[in-house]
Amino acid sequence: MPAEFDLIDRIRRRVLARGDVALGIGDDAALLEVPPGRQLVVAMDTLNAGVHFPVDTAPADIGWKALAVNLSDLAAMGAEPAWCTLSLALPVADAEWLDAFLDGFSELAGAHGIALVGGDTTRGPLSISIAAHGFVEPGRALRRDAARDGDEVWVSGTLGDAAAALPGVLAGAAVDPAMRARLDRPVPRVALGRALAGLARSGIDVSDGLLADLAHVAAASGVAIDIDLDALPGSPAVLALAADARRCTQATGGDDYELCFTAAPADASAIEAIAAVTATRVTRIGRVRGGRGVHARLADGTAWLPPRAGHVHFA
Amino acid sequence: MPAEFDLIDRIRRRVLARGDVALGIGDDAALLEVPPGRQLVVAMDTLNAGVHFPVDTAPADIGWKALAVNLSDLAAMGAEPAWCTLSLALPVADAEWLDAFLDGFSELAGAHGIALVGGDTTRGPLSISIAAHGFVEPGRALRRDAARDGDEVWVSGTLGDAAAALPGVLAGAAVDPAMRARLDRPVPRVALGRALAGLARSGIDVSDGLLADLAHVAAASGVAIDIDLDALPGSPAVLALAADARRCTQATGGDDYELCFTAAPADASAIEAIAAVTATRVTRIGRVRGGRGVHARLADGTAWLPPRAGHVHFA
Repeated sequence: MPAEFDLIDRIRRRVLARGDVALGIGDDAALLEVPPGRQLVVAMDTLNAGVHFPVDTAPADIGWKALAVNLSDLAAMGAEPAWCTLSLALPVADAEWLDAFLDGFSELAGAHGIALVGGDTTRGPLSISIAAHGFVEPGRALRRDAARDGDEVWVSGTLGDAAAALPGVLAGAAVDPAMRARLDRPVPRVALGRALAGLARSGIDVSDGLLADLAHVAAASGVAIDIDLDALPGSPAVLALAADARRCTQATGGDDYELCFTAAPADASAIEAIAAVTATRVTRIGRVRGGRGVHARLADGTAWLPPRAGHVHFA
Repeated sequence: MPAEFDLIDRIRRRVLARGDVALGIGDDAALLEVPPGRQLVVAMDTLNAGVHFPVDTAPADIGWKALAVNLSDLAAMGAEPAWCTLSLALPVADAEWLDAFLDGFSELAGAHGIALVGGDTTRGPLSISIAAHGFVEPGRALRRDAARDGDEVWVSGTLGDAAAALPGVLAGAAVDPAMRARLDRPVPRVALGRALAGLARSGIDVSDGLLADLAHVAAASGVAIDIDLDALPGSPAVLALAADARRCTQATGGDDYELCFTAAPADASAIEAIAAVTATRVTRIGRVRGGRGVHARLADGTAWLPPRAGHVHFA
């Protein structure tokens, strides 16, 4: 069984070079150069086996997803990804598992030019913590507290596939590969987030369920948000579900990793243009107004209450 | 049982304010201002229950130690601490446990002016990951790869108390409180590391055992290091151990979190002055020369080989 330092060597061999990394893996800490005039953006998310991914998830998918959920946080701030640190707890030092994990991790890291600059490997139940670092121009970040009365609410991509796939995956049933991919290989909306920085008013990524995540925006901004449930974009498979199952899956299911953002109505055509340039579908799904809370409505205006208020880790 | 967001609120109430935190806990990521002309220093270390601390360790001590091991990494680079992110995996959402954890964490964070700016709370086996961020002037960091032929090797404080305490702690025996405190509440040598930046040639913190840690310095710098085992500084309790047990404990025991650094002999008096100003004991314990590897010797020059090569997590 390889020692910790063999694991670190295996990791180091897969790392992208960047000119702003003065010292990467191999010392007590990394030395990094933040560009002048930019704010540093730092996110940190952890995935635990059996909690954040099914225990039989392929190691390459775990590597991808652990980085993707962090890149999604950077995207939700409008940040440009730069570096990350990785803490990997493994029950046993399994070089084959690690290499497969790094396949998925490196595929996504390479696509976004993000360099792994340090971290830790420990013995423990399988768990992956990543701290992701990026940059944003001061005043242009997409914050949760900046939604304003009159803003339109937009969402990228489609909602509900990951949540719709999960029960089948957990039961060991056959699951549509496209839906399973939404669960295992979420695509962080980095290019869209970058393009929206300084244009959209507020932003968040949809990770715990649309309504639960928007509740943070409403609370932080001191506004009410109306959501048109029957306008939520979905894949054909999700749109084919029975109406209430579809609404529940799309409004409260987790793991979408789409961006939800608000913008002034006057900026709608600029947003449509950004969507075209970044090849990302965007859909208007609601409106910000004075008041409090998130209010889901059907097409006829009827209020709709979810059976539960989103995915709460410690419910 | 409180929900995740109640845990986050409990954490947020304990956080230090800093002017360079444009946006802290509560969004998808933190927004931070790195001072112009400084390098960003990032370290990330994880503690898992039963691996990195005994399972019956008091939660306040766990909170202290999780931050201390990361501050020790910043100290070993000569960095000034600024911010951290915390990922906390808990088997159950226990507000009382969290408050006690935060007591220890906040005591150390406050002493070093470090602000918690984000992170994650998850359900899982007890594990704490921290990413610590600091600053250093370009060219002044204490790197592992900068030891030079002729340097003297120094170590701060005393070595061996934590390793000497561990067997008794694990056996549930009565342990000298001062030695137990070295295990549970290591004191990161932040002021010493800052003062040594730009003066000492290379540096590392002693976390896995002196000889194992120095082996990284020797390998990274392409030098040999001779260590005088009988010169290692120790507490009275450790110095009272039988000679070979004392050497083994001090040379290969882990969890010291002292700084080991090399410097030109001409800088010895400057180092003694820094030690006086920072009220930190420092001791010369060896010499760098051409060659490879770390060579431990007794006072009479006899070579000494440890029974094991230090604390290897995945041996």
